[in-house]
Amino acid sequence: MARALHLAERGRLSTFPNPRVGCVIVRGGEIVGEGWHERAGEPHAEVYALGMAGERARGADIYVTLEPCSHHGRTPPCSDAVITAGPARVVVAMRDPNPLVAGRGIETLQAAGIIVETGLMEAAARQLNRGFVSRMERGRPFVTLKLGASLDGRTATASGESQWITGADARADVHRLREEAGAVLTSSATVLADDPQLTVRHFSPSPASGGGPGWGRDGSAAPARPHPGLPPLAGEGDKPSRQPDRIVLDPQARVSPEARVWAPGARRIWLVGKEPVQRPDDVEVILLPLTSIHTVDLDAALKALAAAGINELMIECGATLAGSLLEAKLVDELLIYLAPSLLGSEARGLANLSVSQLDQRIRLRYTDVRRVGADLKIIAAIQEI
Amino acid sequence: MARALHLAERGRLSTFPNPRVGCVIVRGGEIVGEGWHERAGEPHAEVYALGMAGERARGADIYVTLEPCSHHGRTPPCSDAVITAGPARVVVAMRDPNPLVAGRGIETLQAAGIIVETGLMEAAARQLNRGFVSRMERGRPFVTLKLGASLDGRTATASGESQWITGADARADVHRLREEAGAVLTSSATVLADDPQLTVRHFSPSPASGGGPGWGRDGSAAPARPHPGLPPLAGEGDKPSRQPDRIVLDPQARVSPEARVWAPGARRIWLVGKEPVQRPDDVEVILLPLTSIHTVDLDAALKALAAAGINELMIECGATLAGSLLEAKLVDELLIYLAPSLLGSEARGLANLSVSQLDQRIRLRYTDVRRVGADLKIIAAIQEI
Repeated sequence: MARALHLAERGRLSTFPNPRVGCVIVRGGEIVGEGWHERAGEPHAEVYALGMAGERARGADIYVTLEPCSHHGRTPPCSDAVITAGPARVVVAMRDPNPLVAGRGIETLQAAGIIVETGLMEAAARQLNRGFVSRMERGRPFVTLKLGASLDGRTATASGESQWITGADARADVHRLREEAGAVLTSSATVLADDPQLTVRHFSPSPASGGGPGWGRDGSAAPARPHPGLPPLAGEGDKPSRQPDRIVLDPQARVSPEARVWAPGARRIWLVGKEPVQRPDDVEVILLPLTSIHTVDLDAALKALAAAGINELMIECGATLAGSLLEAKLVDELLIYLAPSLLGSEARGLANLSVSQLDQRIRLRYTDVRRVGADLKIIAAIQEI
Repeated sequence: MARALHLAERGRLSTFPNPRVGCVIVRGGEIVGEGWHERAGEPHAEVYALGMAGERARGADIYVTLEPCSHHGRTPPCSDAVITAGPARVVVAMRDPNPLVAGRGIETLQAAGIIVETGLMEAAARQLNRGFVSRMERGRPFVTLKLGASLDGRTATASGESQWITGADARADVHRLREEAGAVLTSSATVLADDPQLTVRHFSPSPASGGGPGWGRDGSAAPARPHPGLPPLAGEGDKPSRQPDRIVLDPQARVSPEARVWAPGARRIWLVGKEPVQRPDDVEVILLPLTSIHTVDLDAALKALAAAGINELMIECGATLAGSLLEAKLVDELLIYLAPSLLGSEARGLANLSVSQLDQRIRLRYTDVRRVGADLKIIAAIQEI
């Protein structure tokens, strides 16, 4: 199963909106087939692994990180392919949280007389697909809030000066994580102030410098690809495999159609509280209920993004939206870059929160801390998936 | 020299106000003598090493982390003992910054025909004695500012609630570092608000949990002690070897003689801007020039502490004094514990600084980052020694 999870991770930059899935077929203590899901619309992990195993799948053990699907999507159901192959046992790390499957794949296998075991390395399997799990179980993407500040938690001087508080390595790291999340959201305030591109530009294909997950981080070699003829694997080339979706939260629809965030080259979504006067070409506009003249229903915004197929979302914004998201308990993970500097108590804070009593504070759990250039990169969990 | 530095570190909790010094004597590729300075008033490192080497010191190489002294203090000059022993060569990591020595020890050796080399592992030797070096070269102690905050740099809610932001492990770690610094300073504001004891209570003799320097951190065994009959080494017992000096900065002499900080069991110093009405027993009072009704000259305060023999000082205070010390460039190192929580922008900041422009920010360099319990412990250098 560890190997199947390892294989599944190869799809980390490319399976959106599908989950990352890996599969290993073992017979007589020997691996006879393996595969992973690479891109939506292409075959599922089981299909590759069964194709490699051929007749040797009969009577074998199949390890798969996610319950085989039982429904016709863009590809036929995997449970049928598994039954046809005739294994003795299927070991599943986690049930498919997709309500279209939700145990039905397992039942189909059992009805065909195959022994099915579930739950092996389930926590790792859920973590691998935290975005997909969140979208299916909670109806919203897994949300990472990205912030940058000085060591004393300040993002700008009192006068608003904020450029380059963190260093170039931290910026490159953010670009890599944008690609991994697959979708980036910012606020109209940030777009109006900075006109950001929200693209992956400072690209570093090696995860070693940035510290995120990546192939071979345990020192193992990449497996031979069982399905030749496909384009290079996402993350293997010297360019980003795909530009992340760009999403702007803009209650009053103030962002200009000429803003750089609307430049072609990626899916773009405009979350508005009122109909914009002019729509840039190919930009999806989603109208949300206003909760005040300046704000939309954030829960509804995230639900709309889940409905649009977004699993993971990196939010890059200022203290106002950051505070609102945290107060609404819509942030799952905090990603903070702390620059080696102090800006003092008069400078602007990280997140506008109303914590009047200590026991109302937002509690975190540090999950990863490392240096990125001269800065510190801290990842902290707020809600567990 | 690496071994000599290692030996010198054994005195880290006990040599005050003397420097930590180690010495290794090598003849024919073999260590024939070694020693370290353990306590002020007791023999210097060279004396122990020469005693162990005996006649084998003749023609040998002596490695010593600090220039041998050339003056009569509480013990006779080491340079004379070295000359009598007749080595071929003396390798010195750093010159003694003590103006009473300052190269004269080296000159004495050279005048006696001994080859002297200096500068081997000098940076490590200076770091080991950063307090002594600071006191000798700058006339003030090496200052570590200790702060505790939430991840967004807040020390208390807007209403002032602040107890237990960081966890028990961080508090125990602070106690260990208090012992290592040898002297702790706080402000009258903190004493009046919290009545702290400033003692080492939550004592953990193992540096593994706290993460500070300690014997055997590279996995090596402790050397046999070349001078039996002495009491247990500082830091080896199950109790702190010595309570740190307690110092209160109190411009208006407002602290009560009954404050817990004046309890016996350690040296106590009251830094005041006006003569106190009543002096607690055995408390040293140092009168400093007032710079306003609320403040004394901080530079003068640190110089007075250096004159009182204090090498290293850990300052535990609130945002006001922290800001003043930082603005006056009197902080060498920042020690920050960041709790896994967010308190929001309305909460109180870490340090009251006036940074109106980004290029006025205080720049740091992260030197150590680790977890202590659920908290993060960050050490950052501000000024290099």
